[in-house]
Amino acid sequence: MANIFEVPQPGNDLLEKADQVRLASLEISQTENLHRIRALNLMSDYLEKNTKEILEANNEDYKRAEKKGISKALLSRLKLSKEKLKSGIEGIRKVGGLSDPVNQIQVKRELSKGLVLERKSVPIGVIGVIFESRPDAVMQISSLAIRSGNGVILKGGSEANLTNIALVNALQNGLDEAGLDKNAICLLTSRKDSMAMLNLEKYINLIIPRGSNELVKFIQENTKIPVLGHADGICHLFIDNEANLEMALSVALDSKIQYPAACNSIETLLLHKDIAQVFLENAIPIFNSNDVKLIGDKRAVELGVQFEANFEDWQTEYLDLILSIKVVDNLNEAITHIQKFSSKHTDGIITENPVTANKFMNVIDSAGVFHNCSTRFADGFRYGFGAEVGISTQTLPPRGPVGLEGLVTYKYFLKGDGNIVNDFSSGKASFTHKDL
Amino acid sequence: MANIFEVPQPGNDLLEKADQVRLASLEISQTENLHRIRALNLMSDYLEKNTKEILEANNEDYKRAEKKGISKALLSRLKLSKEKLKSGIEGIRKVGGLSDPVNQIQVKRELSKGLVLERKSVPIGVIGVIFESRPDAVMQISSLAIRSGNGVILKGGSEANLTNIALVNALQNGLDEAGLDKNAICLLTSRKDSMAMLNLEKYINLIIPRGSNELVKFIQENTKIPVLGHADGICHLFIDNEANLEMALSVALDSKIQYPAACNSIETLLLHKDIAQVFLENAIPIFNSNDVKLIGDKRAVELGVQFEANFEDWQTEYLDLILSIKVVDNLNEAITHIQKFSSKHTDGIITENPVTANKFMNVIDSAGVFHNCSTRFADGFRYGFGAEVGISTQTLPPRGPVGLEGLVTYKYFLKGDGNIVNDFSSGKASFTHKDL
Repeated sequence: MANIFEVPQPGNDLLEKADQVRLASLEISQTENLHRIRALNLMSDYLEKNTKEILEANNEDYKRAEKKGISKALLSRLKLSKEKLKSGIEGIRKVGGLSDPVNQIQVKRELSKGLVLERKSVPIGVIGVIFESRPDAVMQISSLAIRSGNGVILKGGSEANLTNIALVNALQNGLDEAGLDKNAICLLTSRKDSMAMLNLEKYINLIIPRGSNELVKFIQENTKIPVLGHADGICHLFIDNEANLEMALSVALDSKIQYPAACNSIETLLLHKDIAQVFLENAIPIFNSNDVKLIGDKRAVELGVQFEANFEDWQTEYLDLILSIKVVDNLNEAITHIQKFSSKHTDGIITENPVTANKFMNVIDSAGVFHNCSTRFADGFRYGFGAEVGISTQTLPPRGPVGLEGLVTYKYFLKGDGNIVNDFSSGKASFTHKDL
Repeated sequence: MANIFEVPQPGNDLLEKADQVRLASLEISQTENLHRIRALNLMSDYLEKNTKEILEANNEDYKRAEKKGISKALLSRLKLSKEKLKSGIEGIRKVGGLSDPVNQIQVKRELSKGLVLERKSVPIGVIGVIFESRPDAVMQISSLAIRSGNGVILKGGSEANLTNIALVNALQNGLDEAGLDKNAICLLTSRKDSMAMLNLEKYINLIIPRGSNELVKFIQENTKIPVLGHADGICHLFIDNEANLEMALSVALDSKIQYPAACNSIETLLLHKDIAQVFLENAIPIFNSNDVKLIGDKRAVELGVQFEANFEDWQTEYLDLILSIKVVDNLNEAITHIQKFSSKHTDGIITENPVTANKFMNVIDSAGVFHNCSTRFADGFRYGFGAEVGISTQTLPPRGPVGLEGLVTYKYFLKGDGNIVNDFSSGKASFTHKDL
């Protein structure tokens, strides 16, 4: 993967491609809702029609990757089964069913007689997507981009090149049949283009990275293009002394073991000292029987946790069946710990005391603050967004799980009948500021 | 000003100050609306009480700056007259009258039985403001930051140091009397701290630069902190062949001469070839009599424009009574020119043809697209926001003139009664996604 971590200047080929996507994105930005839905349906149709070629291409990618000795985890992500493809196609049709994110009127206001301001949602322009292995990302991201009237430049892992080419080929056929410029979906496959797209700030309006923390961090630090995503997901759960301990254990287990590789799984459990002993007495055997390795601070180890934590543990996203446990004196110590180590993704509290819960939720500055439920709910689909383009841990919006709204922006349309500012200085005209 | 363009690492003093502001911002982020309004009123009271000291400090700054031979323009911005101070104080009270930007519920949704999601607006945290000369910025920005529950770190031009110290002193007294940590407003005056705040990404959540294009560009390129603002404001006005030419001239004049130093003034006028001659016959004498220097492309010069434009002119923000004029064959040529040279601030069209107007407004990718009105309306107050924290020319939100909403973000609050994700995989629970 070392080769991925270079940012060369884009060559003329790439600049030309990027300009084609830009032009195609201008076209698609002007399309009606039904036109875009039709394009999605045709994209699905072509994927269905081309199922055989796509699966064969994936088979070939898989064989080559196997020969190269690629890791099992990567191989399993690379594999596109018939079912996975089918569910990807189904996913595209579902995206068609989401309500139109474009042309939504957010503000409509008469500024003065004959002068009307509208703020409407518009596509962002061109989305750049950098992802590793998983070819399903091609279908998902392309459909979200087209749904929202954007162009998209895709750069996948080279081990999935043949699959990605076959997928994009089908998607482009769909666009073409819908009467749209097929360049709205562009796949980069050449090694030298790989990271050069990070320098395409004149062509790409948003980068969405899908991959390892390392990849995301690298991208964030090496581009002037806004990046939607997050590197670490270091989530905490604090069990207060006024917690329902049965609920606490159930939520802690779910938050850790339901899908440990997810970014919304917890890495650290904070236990109020008054309940630490009785909680751990019950919890340790259950975590053990679920193969969770427990690592604790000194007090937790005294209460039976097997391994002792070092400083590094509190800032590590294990993405695995490993959980660090710290005993704290009170709510404030829990808050201080979280403020220091949280990656601002999602942090939760278990307590029956609503005052304690509110204090925790108000003071913790994370995208999600949860009370008496699993951190695993932090997800665009579970939030009811119908789609998720990424989860952002930055402070400014969009924050947390981001749905289609992350692929649109807005612009101000002002229509007048010759209005000039000087008339307002001279008193000839005045502002009404009446919402319509 | 050369000294301002260095970005040293923050020293311990600065880190300590920044941490004090962070703590104070946490406190103020938890306050009720009325508490923040009271703080604003007390801040105004103290400014009133301290009027004499403030004006004396400003007098001293002015005298020192004069001695140093500072430019007249800078001197006039530095000057804080009794009236300017009074209107600044009035401004703070008005900010108190704006509706609370914090704790606004944006989403309220039952995800499943007993599991309720809320998305609420919350303060951003700490705002960093870097401004030149104008001491009125201290009052304006501080009051907006406190109104929205944020802390603020101010760095003004050193020539206004005494004034700024006197102003911040009064503002802090107001905070203090309101029972708030006065560190929520912090002024940096030492030369070595000046630009080091650009490296305070762990403490500052947003930078708002107020100053020259050069300063803004430098800040944008030298900090990892998000920057709200814009460097250039290269705005265009296109006069279509179907324009009402009387209206066109009136709007063009207003867009250029009403306040030429403003970012929303036009720099370039594009004329459809069919109306160029008759328009210029009327326009040239009027622009001349308003001391506007006209610079044109070849065709415009042939039609009487005095000076010939070079490539540089199309990408220059004159901020002065200078206007470049280009004759274009049609709408598309106008659009292409704007796409190439616009700084994406505000671009307008004058036409009686609504189809032409809509095409222009849809295709031009600028924060503001205007039809039959002056570009000078691109302004937070004129849009009815009650306040303006900056104008953003980036594609992603916030875009265009930004009111108080630019100083808040949001966070997701999820409250359950022990809900776990595993129950949804197992079929024991299901999502309702019911908006409440």
